[in-house]
Amino acid sequence: MAEPRRGSTSPSRPAVRFDLDDPVLAAAAWSRVAEPGDVVAGALVEHLGAAGALRWLVDAATDPAGAWRAARIDRLPLPESPTVPGGPSPGVRDGADAVSRLAAAVRRWAPRLDSLDPRRELRVLERCGGALVTRDDPHWPAAFADLGPTAPFALWVRGRADVAAWAERSVALVGSRASTRYGERVTEELAAGLADRGFTVVSGGAYGIDASAHRGALAAAGTTCAVLAGGVDRYYPQGNDGLLRRTVDDGGAVLSEVPPGSAPFRQRFLARNRLIAALTRATVVVEAARRSGALSTARRAADLLRPLGAVPGPVTSMASAGCHGLLRDGAAVCVTSAAEVAELAGRIGHDAEPDGPADGDDLLGELGPDERMLRDALPLRSGATVDGLARSAGLSPRRVLTLLGGFERRGLARCDAGRWSWVR
Amino acid sequence: MAEPRRGSTSPSRPAVRFDLDDPVLAAAAWSRVAEPGDVVAGALVEHLGAAGALRWLVDAATDPAGAWRAARIDRLPLPESPTVPGGPSPGVRDGADAVSRLAAAVRRWAPRLDSLDPRRELRVLERCGGALVTRDDPHWPAAFADLGPTAPFALWVRGRADVAAWAERSVALVGSRASTRYGERVTEELAAGLADRGFTVVSGGAYGIDASAHRGALAAAGTTCAVLAGGVDRYYPQGNDGLLRRTVDDGGAVLSEVPPGSAPFRQRFLARNRLIAALTRATVVVEAARRSGALSTARRAADLLRPLGAVPGPVTSMASAGCHGLLRDGAAVCVTSAAEVAELAGRIGHDAEPDGPADGDDLLGELGPDERMLRDALPLRSGATVDGLARSAGLSPRRVLTLLGGFERRGLARCDAGRWSWVR
Repeated sequence: MAEPRRGSTSPSRPAVRFDLDDPVLAAAAWSRVAEPGDVVAGALVEHLGAAGALRWLVDAATDPAGAWRAARIDRLPLPESPTVPGGPSPGVRDGADAVSRLAAAVRRWAPRLDSLDPRRELRVLERCGGALVTRDDPHWPAAFADLGPTAPFALWVRGRADVAAWAERSVALVGSRASTRYGERVTEELAAGLADRGFTVVSGGAYGIDASAHRGALAAAGTTCAVLAGGVDRYYPQGNDGLLRRTVDDGGAVLSEVPPGSAPFRQRFLARNRLIAALTRATVVVEAARRSGALSTARRAADLLRPLGAVPGPVTSMASAGCHGLLRDGAAVCVTSAAEVAELAGRIGHDAEPDGPADGDDLLGELGPDERMLRDALPLRSGATVDGLARSAGLSPRRVLTLLGGFERRGLARCDAGRWSWVR
Repeated sequence: MAEPRRGSTSPSRPAVRFDLDDPVLAAAAWSRVAEPGDVVAGALVEHLGAAGALRWLVDAATDPAGAWRAARIDRLPLPESPTVPGGPSPGVRDGADAVSRLAAAVRRWAPRLDSLDPRRELRVLERCGGALVTRDDPHWPAAFADLGPTAPFALWVRGRADVAAWAERSVALVGSRASTRYGERVTEELAAGLADRGFTVVSGGAYGIDASAHRGALAAAGTTCAVLAGGVDRYYPQGNDGLLRRTVDDGGAVLSEVPPGSAPFRQRFLARNRLIAALTRATVVVEAARRSGALSTARRAADLLRPLGAVPGPVTSMASAGCHGLLRDGAAVCVTSAAEVAELAGRIGHDAEPDGPADGDDLLGELGPDERMLRDALPLRSGATVDGLARSAGLSPRRVLTLLGGFERRGLARCDAGRWSWVR
């Protein structure tokens, strides 16, 4: 490899074109500087605030040694990283100390400082009719606290920006892009049923199950939300452009943790899945092959101790194999209807599905065991004596007489010349 | 009701036409005298042996008071009854003492003493080519001990009478008579796969799922067994006559706990289900509606702490609703293949299914998180600088260089005049 290329990356004070102390701009900046799920950035922002952390970074990128000292940052409690599949790797050997890990982080953040201007990205969002929701915002969903240092720095939202409000009663329906007609129909019905029950249906805006989830909620005039892996300035995938437009126009939301202009890299899909899981009160996998990406959302939901459901399907369908795996492992609860999903997601005392009818033989429901034996023993035409009935039913003659009396009163049996028969 | 009919049941010493002390005949007799699952009969036979209990009954039917004293039978430990859905009700109020319960039992058994002749029933069995297996027989399955006082008194078997041997490696496949083509196909495949693995496939000989279970095992040249609710002299239902004949002819068995000539009363179906559950190492419900009788077999298996599996199906199919209920309640494990059923039924260390491939994105399996980010950031044609790649991938330029070196060595990336692109 040619060394000269490396010279171009020597540190020089980045030209920052915005107010570093504005907390909203700083949060927006962090969502550009650090990749989703970067625990070092998360810990730093937690420690110094978004603005303080950004100021620290600008210093550190120029003079690392000075910055460490200034902020006593060497005592920063850093979690083991990466804790999120989408999060960047530490960039240093495992078990490295905080200083080495911070130094590695500064090296990966610094290249983005030069071109950094969150005001430009906010203008793009504004032109889309969107709004930025930061951690200090009353609309910030409290549920993100469960993500710890991998929580997003900001949400770039088109449509309903009162995220905390609608997330309070929301369900994630996720699944394969390679869906079957069965999975799509079931997803649409679940989404419509959940929308009818006042749940916001959250999914990833992708083809297949995701699209069916948004579509089903919209068909029921419900609220739905797509969490994208790339910037919300561009609806991705393009084939779902119309659907995502309707999602926003019909009172729902399309949101992302990365700013406008961010490409939907695969790693960002994996990181995005943690937001879907954290945001909602339950996650349901409708259809997923054994290695489907939808299973990563399921794992995140399980990690976050969120209720997890899986919809079964034909065992002959590979598109359901991932769901069956989750059921088999006991990771997910079997759900087959919107009512069952609502129960999974609902608060105790709300949304509980009334128990279905008790199992058992329909026809025999009303009769006791002895009555059933006697009824089976009673001939339809010829008639039988009490003694004969006692023998065939395995009951005492006295009991047979008592039961026959009851049958007679109910018009079920009749006696002709000492021989009993069943009436209907 | 006319009282005179009752006079015909006054006690008189029954005309016993066989050797009361022959334990085999006595066991056969008890399988006629008491209905399946009669816990009082079970406790009595346990206490006095089949022959002793029978002799006691003959005395008690004539002179109840004398018999109690003779056998100190008032101290008989009687379990709460009925413990089996198919078992007769106690015939006395709940919590009645042993004497009252025995007296009620004698009243229901006595009517069958008169015509009792197990030799005649054994001759019928012999003509069918069958054999009686009693509790003292080496072929008696030890697993029946789990049934306690509801264990059968004898098995009337056509075909392979070494029940203990084949039951050691057997699985019950049960389900609705009202099956779908999906359920039947899945059942046949499971049965064939289990037969291939050396399991005997046990079911109830009914239409629908039961028939598919027997058929699938036979198709794979395996052993299968039908446990009937009525006597084995008559294959029931008649439409399965050919299938049950093949079951016996091809090295399997058709068996029942009730003697030849016994009609397949519904109560006996319910009682029969406990035998299917007890006999086998696991029970799998392939297809069952929400109130299907197959669920009673599932409940018996669960009561007996036998592994229980359920095969999922389309949530749109009512024929799978019972299976989904079992999965939802956590009563059953989700099984989708013969290998998984074998694992459920197998002994530890045997039949364990090797783990499937790990979940995750197929394409990204070999690359680390940073490599994936870089790969997504690498353009296919135009080429990008190291600094540009560092910015878009969120990595330090040094890390980008290292990773590019690796890509280059593996032929994944190439450099043209300082600009890098992805090769394939």
